[in-house]
Amino acid sequence: MKLPGRLLSDNRDIGERVSAAQLTVTYPDPAPLIGRQVVAIVNFPPRRIAGFPSEVLVLGAMGAGGEVYLLEPDPESPLGLRIG
Amino acid sequence: MKLPGRLLSDNRDIGERVSAAQLTVTYPDPAPLIGRQVVAIVNFPPRRIAGFPSEVLVLGAMGAGGEVYLLEPDPESPLGLRIG
Repeated sequence: MKLPGRLLSDNRDIGERVSAAQLTVTYPDPAPLIGRQVVAIVNFPPRRIAGFPSEVLVLGAMGAGGEVYLLEPDPESPLGLRIG
Repeated sequence: MKLPGRLLSDNRDIGERVSAAQLTVTYPDPAPLIGRQVVAIVNFPPRRIAGFPSEVLVLGAMGAGGEVYLLEPDPESPLGLRIG
């Protein structure tokens, strides 16, 4: 199952974006994903992933069995910061 | 103050690497950094950062005031996975 999601950022340069990712192996329950911080590449051109539009690439560590461990800043950071 | 650290990975392709990063604004106490998972670029050539050797670039979200919010996989992942 693909789980399309909606990303929100209070950084005006980024705004609201849609992303599609295969997350159900690691996160069978989507509830903890709502409102969490993610790390994403936002300057790729939009594309379709398994039929879903995807405007940003949300980053995670990728296991051999298809599991994805989403990256997050720790401690929680202001939204919209650049990664370096 | 710069805080040189030592990274360990059980992935034989990566091994033990040294990194230098300016972390003391966000992490005034280094204790919680010991043993935590980080995300790093490991195929850059080694360089010196403020006098310290640095072999890998540990990634974080970078605030305007010099604070760094280290990235980590959540949930905790096997070590040595690639990011995508």
